[in-house]
Amino acid sequence: MAENLVKKQFAVTGFDVRADNIRAFESLGGKGAATAAEAARDADVLIVMVVNATQAESVLFDAGALDALAPGGTVVLMATCAPSAVKAIAARVEASGRHIVDAPVSGGTIGAKGGTLTIMAAASKAVFDTMHPVLVTLGDKLFHVGEEPGQGAAVKTVNQLLCGVHIAVAAEAFALAEKAGIDGKLALEILGGSAAGSWMLNNRGPRMFEEEPIVASAVDIFVKDLGIVVDAGRASKTPLPIASAALQMFLAASAMGLGAKDDSQVVEAYRHIAGLKK
Amino acid sequence: MAENLVKKQFAVTGFDVRADNIRAFESLGGKGAATAAEAARDADVLIVMVVNATQAESVLFDAGALDALAPGGTVVLMATCAPSAVKAIAARVEASGRHIVDAPVSGGTIGAKGGTLTIMAAASKAVFDTMHPVLVTLGDKLFHVGEEPGQGAAVKTVNQLLCGVHIAVAAEAFALAEKAGIDGKLALEILGGSAAGSWMLNNRGPRMFEEEPIVASAVDIFVKDLGIVVDAGRASKTPLPIASAALQMFLAASAMGLGAKDDSQVVEAYRHIAGLKK
Repeated sequence: MAENLVKKQFAVTGFDVRADNIRAFESLGGKGAATAAEAARDADVLIVMVVNATQAESVLFDAGALDALAPGGTVVLMATCAPSAVKAIAARVEASGRHIVDAPVSGGTIGAKGGTLTIMAAASKAVFDTMHPVLVTLGDKLFHVGEEPGQGAAVKTVNQLLCGVHIAVAAEAFALAEKAGIDGKLALEILGGSAAGSWMLNNRGPRMFEEEPIVASAVDIFVKDLGIVVDAGRASKTPLPIASAALQMFLAASAMGLGAKDDSQVVEAYRHIAGLKK
Repeated sequence: MAENLVKKQFAVTGFDVRADNIRAFESLGGKGAATAAEAARDADVLIVMVVNATQAESVLFDAGALDALAPGGTVVLMATCAPSAVKAIAARVEASGRHIVDAPVSGGTIGAKGGTLTIMAAASKAVFDTMHPVLVTLGDKLFHVGEEPGQGAAVKTVNQLLCGVHIAVAAEAFALAEKAGIDGKLALEILGGSAAGSWMLNNRGPRMFEEEPIVASAVDIFVKDLGIVVDAGRASKTPLPIASAALQMFLAASAMGLGAKDDSQVVEAYRHIAGLKK
C-alpha cells in the first residue's frame, strides 16, 4: 500500500515492526523510519494499517504517533476494529485537533498489492474529499459510507457477518448432505453454481473436503470477527440470531483445537455434532 | 416440460387440473387426458410434477395413476418433498412392481421452459440409465446423486437450506447496517460484489428496499421449505443451528401477516425486532 503511494509521487515515510519491510520499502523509493512517531513526524496524513484496535491504540497513543502528526493532520485508520473502538479512537484523535477517516478495507493481500482494495470510508465530507487522492491510490472501490467515525467499521462488520455466516452455513449444508449419504463434493458441484451459491461456498467449500487444507484465514479470525459482529449487535440493540448461531460453531471448532486451522474446518465441528466423526 | 418431451419425439399424454393447460398442450402436438389415471394408462413412464408430497400422493394413490401405469413402469417424482415423504411414496410404488426416480429440480419456470433445469436424481443405476434420455430432455444439469429414493429430496433440501439462510442473513446484515445509519442500498452495492456476496443477496437484496416488491416466491414457501429442512435434520439427527434460526425469522415474518409477500420481506421482521419500524 505504501509502495502504491510512492508510485503515485506521494512523499511517504514508513514504519513497520519488521526492519526487513522498512529496508524493502526504502529500496522502492520510500523513506524508512525507526519508530511510528518518527514516521508520523509533521506529516499531513498518518495511515494506520495494523491488525486490530489494540494495535491502532498502541501506535497512536502509546508510541506517540498522534502527537507527532502535524497540527490539523489526518489519521486514516484502516485496521478492522469494532465500531465502538473506532468511536473511542476518533474522539481522542479529534480532541488532539486532528481529523480522522474510519476506513477499513476488504480484498486481502492481493487487493493491497494491486491497489484494488474495497475501502469503506466514514468521515465528514470535507475530510473525505481532501483524502480522496490518497484513498483512490490504495483502493479502486472507494465508498463514502457515512459522516460519523464508526460507520466504516460498521460496514466492515456487516461484511464479516455475511462472510462468517456463509462459511458456517456451507458447512451445515454439507453435514446434512453427508448424513443423507450424499457425496459432499457432488453436492458442492450441484449447489455452487445455482441460486444456493455464495462466494464463500465456492471458495471455502472445496477445502471442506481436504484433510489438511492451506490456512487462508484461521477459524480463530472468525471467532474474533463474529465476536465483533455480535458485540456490535448488542451495542446497537440489533438482534442477530443467525450470526450468533454461526459464532457458536466457530467457537466449537476452536474449542476442539482447530482455532489455527483454515476457517473451512468449521465443517469438522458440524461433522462431530452430527455424529459423522468420533 | 411436457412440450420439451414432445419436441424430442416422445409420445406424451398430459393431464393438468386446469383444462386450459391441457388444450394448450394438445395444440403443441401432445395428447390430452381427462384424468391423471387416463394420462398414466399403460405408459412406461409417469412424470409427476406437482407442488408437494400431498399432491403427489393424491395423484399416485387416490387418483389411481400408479395402478394405471404399465407393469414394470417408472414413476419420476419431481415435486419438492421431504426425504421421509419420498421414502414412503417409493415404498408404495415399488410394492406395486414399478420403479421410482426421486428427481426434484431447481431452476424455476425459466429452467422448465428452456429445458435447463438442475435435476437431482436418486435411483438405482439401472433405472437412472433407462430414464436418462427423458431426464436430459427436461434439464441440462442432470446429477445422479444416489441409489436410494429420498437422496434426491435430500439434495433439494440442502439447496433450500442454503437459499433460505442466504435470504434471511442478507436481511439480518441490512438490519445491522441500517441501525448504524448506513444506507442499505449502498451496503448492498459494496457487499454484493465482494467475498460477502451470494446469489440470493444480489437477487433478493434489491427487493428488500422496495415498499411492495413483486412476489417471486412467498415468505410462506420458506416457512414450509425450511420446515422440511429442520424436519430432515431431526429425522437424520443433524443439528442445524443456523437453518433453525433462519426459519424462526421467516416464521416471524409470516406471523406479522407477511406470509404471502415476497420472501425478501423477511427483512421487515428484522426491522421490527431491531426497533427500526414500529
